[in-house]
Amino acid sequence: MSDTAYQKLENRMRRIGLLGEAGAVLQWDASAIMPEGGGSARSEQLAELRAISHATLTSSETADLIEAARDEGTLSDWHQANLDLIHRQWLRATAVPEDLVVAFSRACSTSEAGWRQARADNDFSHVLPYAETVLELTRETGAAKSEKLGLGLYDTLLDEFDPGQRSADIDIIFDDLTAWLPDFLDDVLAHQAIVGPATKPDGPFAIETQKALGMEFMTALGFEFDHGRLDISLHPFCGGTPDDVRITTRYDESDFSSAMMGVLHETGHALYERGLPADWRHQPVGAALGMSIHESQSLLIEMQVCRSADFFAYAAPLMRQAFGLNRTVGSAENLHRVNTKVERGLIRVEADEVTYPAHVILRYRLERALIDGQMALKDLPGEWNKGMEELLGVVPPTDTLGCLQDIHWYDGAWGYFPTYTLGAMTAAQLFTTAKKELPGLVEDIRGGNFKPLLSWLRTNVHNKGSSQPAGHLIKHVTGQPLNAEIFKNHLRQRYLDATRA
Amino acid sequence: MSDTAYQKLENRMRRIGLLGEAGAVLQWDASAIMPEGGGSARSEQLAELRAISHATLTSSETADLIEAARDEGTLSDWHQANLDLIHRQWLRATAVPEDLVVAFSRACSTSEAGWRQARADNDFSHVLPYAETVLELTRETGAAKSEKLGLGLYDTLLDEFDPGQRSADIDIIFDDLTAWLPDFLDDVLAHQAIVGPATKPDGPFAIETQKALGMEFMTALGFEFDHGRLDISLHPFCGGTPDDVRITTRYDESDFSSAMMGVLHETGHALYERGLPADWRHQPVGAALGMSIHESQSLLIEMQVCRSADFFAYAAPLMRQAFGLNRTVGSAENLHRVNTKVERGLIRVEADEVTYPAHVILRYRLERALIDGQMALKDLPGEWNKGMEELLGVVPPTDTLGCLQDIHWYDGAWGYFPTYTLGAMTAAQLFTTAKKELPGLVEDIRGGNFKPLLSWLRTNVHNKGSSQPAGHLIKHVTGQPLNAEIFKNHLRQRYLDATRA
Repeated sequence: MSDTAYQKLENRMRRIGLLGEAGAVLQWDASAIMPEGGGSARSEQLAELRAISHATLTSSETADLIEAARDEGTLSDWHQANLDLIHRQWLRATAVPEDLVVAFSRACSTSEAGWRQARADNDFSHVLPYAETVLELTRETGAAKSEKLGLGLYDTLLDEFDPGQRSADIDIIFDDLTAWLPDFLDDVLAHQAIVGPATKPDGPFAIETQKALGMEFMTALGFEFDHGRLDISLHPFCGGTPDDVRITTRYDESDFSSAMMGVLHETGHALYERGLPADWRHQPVGAALGMSIHESQSLLIEMQVCRSADFFAYAAPLMRQAFGLNRTVGSAENLHRVNTKVERGLIRVEADEVTYPAHVILRYRLERALIDGQMALKDLPGEWNKGMEELLGVVPPTDTLGCLQDIHWYDGAWGYFPTYTLGAMTAAQLFTTAKKELPGLVEDIRGGNFKPLLSWLRTNVHNKGSSQPAGHLIKHVTGQPLNAEIFKNHLRQRYLDATRA
Repeated sequence: MSDTAYQKLENRMRRIGLLGEAGAVLQWDASAIMPEGGGSARSEQLAELRAISHATLTSSETADLIEAARDEGTLSDWHQANLDLIHRQWLRATAVPEDLVVAFSRACSTSEAGWRQARADNDFSHVLPYAETVLELTRETGAAKSEKLGLGLYDTLLDEFDPGQRSADIDIIFDDLTAWLPDFLDDVLAHQAIVGPATKPDGPFAIETQKALGMEFMTALGFEFDHGRLDISLHPFCGGTPDDVRITTRYDESDFSSAMMGVLHETGHALYERGLPADWRHQPVGAALGMSIHESQSLLIEMQVCRSADFFAYAAPLMRQAFGLNRTVGSAENLHRVNTKVERGLIRVEADEVTYPAHVILRYRLERALIDGQMALKDLPGEWNKGMEELLGVVPPTDTLGCLQDIHWYDGAWGYFPTYTLGAMTAAQLFTTAKKELPGLVEDIRGGNFKPLLSWLRTNVHNKGSSQPAGHLIKHVTGQPLNAEIFKNHLRQRYLDATRA
């Protein structure tokens, strides 16, 4: 019996999936261990793999197979979801003319280099012309896809990172948070002033010790070291493939918390990748759902679990022993307070859980206005500072500490920022449901037993792959759409309720 | 102006070259650092890269382009050589029907597993049926290629590993060695008995120290650590790509010589890869010439340079300091003698420079007889032992120490073995010429200055890529074809001439 069109299409996607895996390992290698002189050859290797994938996806045979598969009739839900995702990938890939793709890619490289220079010079105007080109081409590319996908311009960009996400939904959620956050932040800071400062452990903390303890926590959380690695890189990330997930971190000998929390964050990403449905490897429906769900998995592990007082009941004795901390500095209470300190800061990537949404909401507002043409890019520094004052009560003294701090826009990633906060909120909502459905969960965490939680995440999130949009999954698992109230409750409990610390 | 057929062909080969590089890094990763659970996914990734390369090479467009390029007229020597090599690759790839390729690949996997079992059971008969299938399919595959290439059956196999190599030439060289070797070996052993045993340094030798010293020697020899790495793997090898060459070793805390000489051997391979002509990257003519030249480069560094008395004049003080050896054990003379000890052994990979050719000549004789059908595979154990007695005067007590020791035949690599000894002889011949052309070379080596040698190798060997067959290169550089007498002179000087030690 010969293959159906659908089966032939799966075979093509399998090739693309395997090329993607090969590329992911080569990317990891480039970031973690490659000697510098290998860089330009590696870029060529990766570009070639991408070119083959692109040609495979956009060939006329693929278009014919998609059409024929749609005509073949009844497919299972998963097969149908896979076909829909393939069709969407094909629409995106074929919507934009080749010369525009090339122009955009070049503009991003130039602008990224300009951004590095502008940061060094501390002068936004030095990157402005390049960034304007990127913005213009982002809009042009977005418009071409928008037409094919039947989405608005900004939603088209958003959908690329977070399929199914719509700005109309985000507006409601972010408006809610925006109205609530400034007063809440005042309350938290007042509360922390009364309680007094936590005591930061004094280093140095040997890297080997930090690594060994990190690996102990990773193993407890369910990371399988026969299917993954922990290494070092300048910018921590989770890479590799579902069967060989590789996370990286960067150690600081004077502070073990930053690398440790980073490792636990990436472990959340890694557990998600590892738990993706093995039966659907190398197919779009078997892949991770989108950035907000991916970020929800890292933040569920880092923020919901590992910065909780309950986690430190388990972790503090191990930290005391590993780093030789005394019982005061190394108490569960002190270590928890060290890891939940809130501050009005200027830098997103250093922000705590409470102020982080303000950084994201600022960027969301600005990028929407820029994409929709309601604001000119030259006005960004002023608007940025105005927004920081309004949302966080602080004003960046320089562009480098302001609108030049993140690479995203300069590198062409417009529509990405909201996923960080949507992920944080999704994490809170999923974890609240998990606690309800697993009555022993808090005690398990205090005892260092994360198996029930992982099993719950596997069943409810990881194993689902991309078989349904993020919104459906959240509603199905938690019984309601994404709800800012749940995230707010989490923050209130952790940062104001003294009984829960 | 549109591309010529030749240029289009180069573009196709560039894709194959880049896929090969991507595969090489993934292979390195699998051997050096991949967690075990990543194995089956990795196999699929590599198989897909190979499938794409194969399809690209064997497509009808490639055939058309080869033909059109041949008709386009005058090409430079390098371009012409490239076109000839592409044509040859295409002939090989298209000669064998797809189902035979698949059957052969499966038979090799089965037979390799059977070989592991037979070794564990110490019983050749347990792998015999599987090995017979491999041999039969090797002959069938070889016959198909043989017809297209216009070569005899065994020469077709040989040519796959060592383009241009012919058994008629090897016969002359090996016959010469065979007649000479047994008496010479007696003389060497008698000589060493008179001189008395060397003193093996007593460990333990910390792995970190071994690695640091190895890297010092590598750097001195010209290995560029911004274009390569040194790591650990079970089976030492040289992998990666010309711009990112990665060698591996395996450390033994009780003996630093084995890993050190292994590192220096792989460094020779690495210097060759790194020195391949950058203008011809990703084209067949820019690749390494074949296994005997590759092996000549590793053996030139290991055997000709780094096991010489001159090298130990430079290295011994560094070894003394690194490992805290006393002046007797750590003298240049003693360390040189430790590293040039000759013994009648059973195992090829542990053999010294003098007995190694006997191991290879035995395998060459046997595989020719087996491929030509003059011997049955069931008779291998008996014939092996008979040959060992004749050539080396020792008889393996078991098959595991005899005809089961090497993976090559069981894994389908027939026609490979001669390259080891051809490489050793080529190394001696090239080094003899280098010494003539670089009058200060011996003093340079004694002073740890390897730059003139590397520069000579770059010009005469590395930068030539595959622009001419190995035989031409040897004749062009050394003024004569491969000549057993030069290799014999080297051995006489090193192992019998007391004034040279």
